[in-house]
Amino acid sequence: MAQEGVAAAANGATVVEKSVTFTAYKPQLIVEAQKVGDAVAFYKDVFGATETGHSLYPKRKADQELPHVVSAEIKLAGATVVVSDVSVHTGSNVKTGNVSALLETDDVEVAVAKAVAAGAVKVEVSEGEADGGVKGKVTDPFGFTWIFVSPVEKSDKEENKEVV
Amino acid sequence: MAQEGVAAAANGATVVEKSVTFTAYKPQLIVEAQKVGDAVAFYKDVFGATETGHSLYPKRKADQELPHVVSAEIKLAGATVVVSDVSVHTGSNVKTGNVSALLETDDVEVAVAKAVAAGAVKVEVSEGEADGGVKGKVTDPFGFTWIFVSPVEKSDKEENKEVV
Repeated sequence: MAQEGVAAAANGATVVEKSVTFTAYKPQLIVEAQKVGDAVAFYKDVFGATETGHSLYPKRKADQELPHVVSAEIKLAGATVVVSDVSVHTGSNVKTGNVSALLETDDVEVAVAKAVAAGAVKVEVSEGEADGGVKGKVTDPFGFTWIFVSPVEKSDKEENKEVV
Repeated sequence: MAQEGVAAAANGATVVEKSVTFTAYKPQLIVEAQKVGDAVAFYKDVFGATETGHSLYPKRKADQELPHVVSAEIKLAGATVVVSDVSVHTGSNVKTGNVSALLETDDVEVAVAKAVAAGAVKVEVSEGEADGGVKGKVTDPFGFTWIFVSPVEKSDKEENKEVV
């Protein structure tokens, strides 16, 4: 939750003076469409990763699309890593083989404002990403993308989310 | 430490049957030459990161090069993240704005062999990287680079390492 920092001005710039709490950082590995399952199998086999949750692309038309995993969360050497299907993401920095960072926070608006005030560029969140829980997104001055999401609740993890 | 897995054959392929323990996963953010300090300052300011260690590029000729940080380790939302100067890295996947993964393990040889057996490609470690503690490196079938390093000892963290 945001806490008031130093003196609050009346012009809206005060937002950058608030402190923001980030409760988790998760690298997000972007893989080719429908390759999340293969990648997770590889990381289990080679690095001893364990899967802790996933989201499915739902079956929408019986003969056209089978459900498949579009995002999976794994534990790897004590860290939490997300493997995501490129087809549900947008933006110039979202490409197969790229790694972005998911940051969990309840204060997305403040987080974006602070980042922008310090020189980051706000990136528009696409509809598909927003459905997947992405609430804010910036590219920092060093070329990295930071994606702000709400803290994951345990009960959300295994449900079939509509992501596109 | 490697532990014997199933039956060991005599042809050298046995290495992939051993289990490997990875003690830490750390995303490594590659920034422009001499920008590690700026990036760490940004992550402290915007994301509340704290610096837990760094390596310096040493002063070699009094009038030419001043010491500067080539690699820093920060804590960010509970995760450990490494910020590294691009000038001390090599390889097609090592570019400004890219994120690779550092995996700490005592069993680099086995880790590389297992990854390659599963479809990863071994990447040569350059002299500069080897001086920095990198012992093995692969690119997986999904386009990500995994760098194997020995577990960091506390006493190594603040020393002036010769990295190039």
